[in-house]
Amino acid sequence: ADKVKRFPGLVRREIWKVGKDDPRRILHSLKVGLALALVSLLYLMEPLFKGIGSNAMWAVMTVVVVMEFTVGGTLSKGLNRGLGTSLAGLLAFFIEYLADNPDQIFRAIFIGAAVFLLGAAATFVRFIPYIKKNYDYGVMVFLLTFNLIIVSSYRVDNVLKMAKDRISTICIGVGLCLVMSLFVFPNWSGEDLHKSTISKLEGLANSVEATVVEYFSDSKKQANEDDSSEDPIYKCYEAVLDSKARDETLALQASWEPRYSKCCQRIPWQQYAKVGASLRHFSYTVVALHGCLQSEIQTPRSIRDLYKDSCIRLAQEVSKVLRVMANSIRKKHQFSLQILSNNLNEVLQDLDNALKSQPQLLLGSRNSRSRTPKISTKATAHNDNRLEEETRLSLSSIKSDCCSPVGSKSKEHSREQIKEGQRQKKVLRPQLSKIIITSLEFSEALPFAAFTSMLVEMVAKLDHVMDKVEELGRMSHFREFRDGDDDE
Amino acid sequence: ADKVKRFPGLVRREIWKVGKDDPRRILHSLKVGLALALVSLLYLMEPLFKGIGSNAMWAVMTVVVVMEFTVGGTLSKGLNRGLGTSLAGLLAFFIEYLADNPDQIFRAIFIGAAVFLLGAAATFVRFIPYIKKNYDYGVMVFLLTFNLIIVSSYRVDNVLKMAKDRISTICIGVGLCLVMSLFVFPNWSGEDLHKSTISKLEGLANSVEATVVEYFSDSKKQANEDDSSEDPIYKCYEAVLDSKARDETLALQASWEPRYSKCCQRIPWQQYAKVGASLRHFSYTVVALHGCLQSEIQTPRSIRDLYKDSCIRLAQEVSKVLRVMANSIRKKHQFSLQILSNNLNEVLQDLDNALKSQPQLLLGSRNSRSRTPKISTKATAHNDNRLEEETRLSLSSIKSDCCSPVGSKSKEHSREQIKEGQRQKKVLRPQLSKIIITSLEFSEALPFAAFTSMLVEMVAKLDHVMDKVEELGRMSHFREFRDGDDDE
Repeated sequence: ADKVKRFPGLVRREIWKVGKDDPRRILHSLKVGLALALVSLLYLMEPLFKGIGSNAMWAVMTVVVVMEFTVGGTLSKGLNRGLGTSLAGLLAFFIEYLADNPDQIFRAIFIGAAVFLLGAAATFVRFIPYIKKNYDYGVMVFLLTFNLIIVSSYRVDNVLKMAKDRISTICIGVGLCLVMSLFVFPNWSGEDLHKSTISKLEGLANSVEATVVEYFSDSKKQANEDDSSEDPIYKCYEAVLDSKARDETLALQASWEPRYSKCCQRIPWQQYAKVGASLRHFSYTVVALHGCLQSEIQTPRSIRDLYKDSCIRLAQEVSKVLRVMANSIRKKHQFSLQILSNNLNEVLQDLDNALKSQPQLLLGSRNSRSRTPKISTKATAHNDNRLEEETRLSLSSIKSDCCSPVGSKSKEHSREQIKEGQRQKKVLRPQLSKIIITSLEFSEALPFAAFTSMLVEMVAKLDHVMDKVEELGRMSHFREFRDGDDDE
Repeated sequence: ADKVKRFPGLVRREIWKVGKDDPRRILHSLKVGLALALVSLLYLMEPLFKGIGSNAMWAVMTVVVVMEFTVGGTLSKGLNRGLGTSLAGLLAFFIEYLADNPDQIFRAIFIGAAVFLLGAAATFVRFIPYIKKNYDYGVMVFLLTFNLIIVSSYRVDNVLKMAKDRISTICIGVGLCLVMSLFVFPNWSGEDLHKSTISKLEGLANSVEATVVEYFSDSKKQANEDDSSEDPIYKCYEAVLDSKARDETLALQASWEPRYSKCCQRIPWQQYAKVGASLRHFSYTVVALHGCLQSEIQTPRSIRDLYKDSCIRLAQEVSKVLRVMANSIRKKHQFSLQILSNNLNEVLQDLDNALKSQPQLLLGSRNSRSRTPKISTKATAHNDNRLEEETRLSLSSIKSDCCSPVGSKSKEHSREQIKEGQRQKKVLRPQLSKIIITSLEFSEALPFAAFTSMLVEMVAKLDHVMDKVEELGRMSHFREFRDGDDDE
């Protein structure tokens, strides 16, 4: 009984939420209502009805079926409907012409066979992936119209007029839908895709930052958040993990939309889908990183705290890169791959320095713990030796990386440099990883080593995302990078 | 020109592939053709046409729109269509009753307002997630029918008869679709879901095994496969990563299907979706593990080879657990969580033993390399000490784990034991990880440590999958586990 009483409140809250989440939905609902009311006038107003007659029904039907939330959706359905209807009409007349025989039974059999064959063929065609993706609705409408016309033709004499009336009313319906979609507060799929790409980049930036901060924060709070499934970090990247279907639909609808970039070139919506795919792969690493928070064995806080600053700085740099890319897409300017790569290299080096500079501290904290007291002095001596050794090796390689000349701004040249920078970074990274693991050789350090290696892996995946976004920038003819663009 | 010439061949191959991938598609196409031919008889045969008249058109339309590939899809669309039409009819008559006024202009305005309001409300309702998921099509049909009836009512006098005819023809169409779906070679969504769950489990099993084998195999072959994007390992788990939309659609459609398990209880399709979700999370770890193959720095083969057997054995055990679960779902019997957990524990312990037993060998191979020759003797002494220390600690805990009594087969009891076993495994795992990282303290060992820690992480995720599958077994009342079930 209590549940029944609460039910209206629940419904009201749900409806309120749906409207508040996206106010365009309310607008769209009113638009559909208006379109339906307008198309009803064909029936309700005497002069209009005289011209069209009861075929006005088809216009009503078209409006209900074709009107979609976004311009791309409406256009793709409308054009599919138009095309399907026209083709079906032509074919139906051709078959009727073939079936033109005084013998009624022969005609019936002929029509039945045609219906069977076309029905089976059209249904099978709908399974072909390319058709299914682009023209599924069109084939269905084709089948529908073909059947209606060919079957009616058996009884009605003036099928040609009927078909013409029907097609013209469908055109009226499609036209009304397009006008309402295109000119009255239009919702563009492309814009949605654009915005969702930006918000995914920013969501990932937030979750990377939050994950690393939480890893180094008070562990009590952490335990609490494990219990609730409402983990805010999870929510940030959850949307990215399952974005495939939505991305592809939006990219498909957007490709129907008549929108062009400044230079009158098509906006490469499929590239947005590719950026989405690379973000999904990036997010798998974020999942693994987030998993480190929940694993049962944890490196002692005292050790973690030593590297807190460098790790957080690396995470912040990764987040910054993601945000710069988000901004670059939002403001439609390209970004400087080189500067970002250099910054990333710098913080990777920072982390490396931190791991190198603290061997004594690390060992000191180790000494204060009870597990491996017997061997710690021996280990100290040995470690110092080895660390210094490796440090010398890798520092030299790092220095040669960071001093690569930065100069000319001509695009081709900087592109080359970037490639070079990336190659150097790829050389740099393994070196760093070696040092990282070297300084983290003790048992409690496994989870921290995994965490660090995930951070480094994330930078590798980030490379891929940066490539895709940079390609998007070039394909969309974003304006070139200017100094100060990244500061915003 | 060459492209045009090749085009027919391409199309033919594509069509052949679509049919070969799933021969049920051909059957379904023939079924739709047959259904359309049958429904056309309403029009083509004189006695039937006399009874129904030109409203037979609605039956044709219904068949085209409602007939879906699976029984669940057809049922959900058919019932949605029936419900939507009936409700719309009722509401339309109610509103017509209200609008019963001799003044034609008042009636027109009243009808127009009703169309606008209902159109806006119905469109908005379609945005509510619950409605969108279950009744989207129903609401659309409701809006369509309501508009057609209310608008027609303005001109046609005998609306009641028209509506009755229309509803009865729609019922004929829906009935025909259901008969064709349910009784002529039915395709069940539930069966698809069942099979796809099994194949996902097996695909993951294959990819885990292949990844680990490839990690320890000849590195030349590995480089080749990096180049081609046609990586067979990727293909195995790719289907799992993006399975969310398909799983949920199938589970939804399956829940409309009138299928019951042996004990006349509903099959918990939503639990299949949950198993799918846990498999998706498991697959993120597989992605990370697979990423280890592609990372630029690799642990020297000589070191890797030492642990080859244990790692491969662990991977094989993980694969075996996945296959046992696949078999358990396929043959509808429960599986023994306890035995599987014990086996997993055993191979984890194996890996641990391997890591412990080879310190000399490990150091020997290290000596033979050039990077850290100065310190290797010191390290040897130190390592032996520490490893032995830790070994003693962890071996005792492992032994107490593995000797837990295995006996009574009463379900409750074994369930408790399983829980206990799981807890013990959770205690065991960190211990092992400690030893693993301890013995892998050298720089080249980072990638291997990450690989090993991913393997261990994978076992943790596997736990979750096992829980979900076990729950599925209980909810579906699979028959209880018997000795020998796992041997098949």
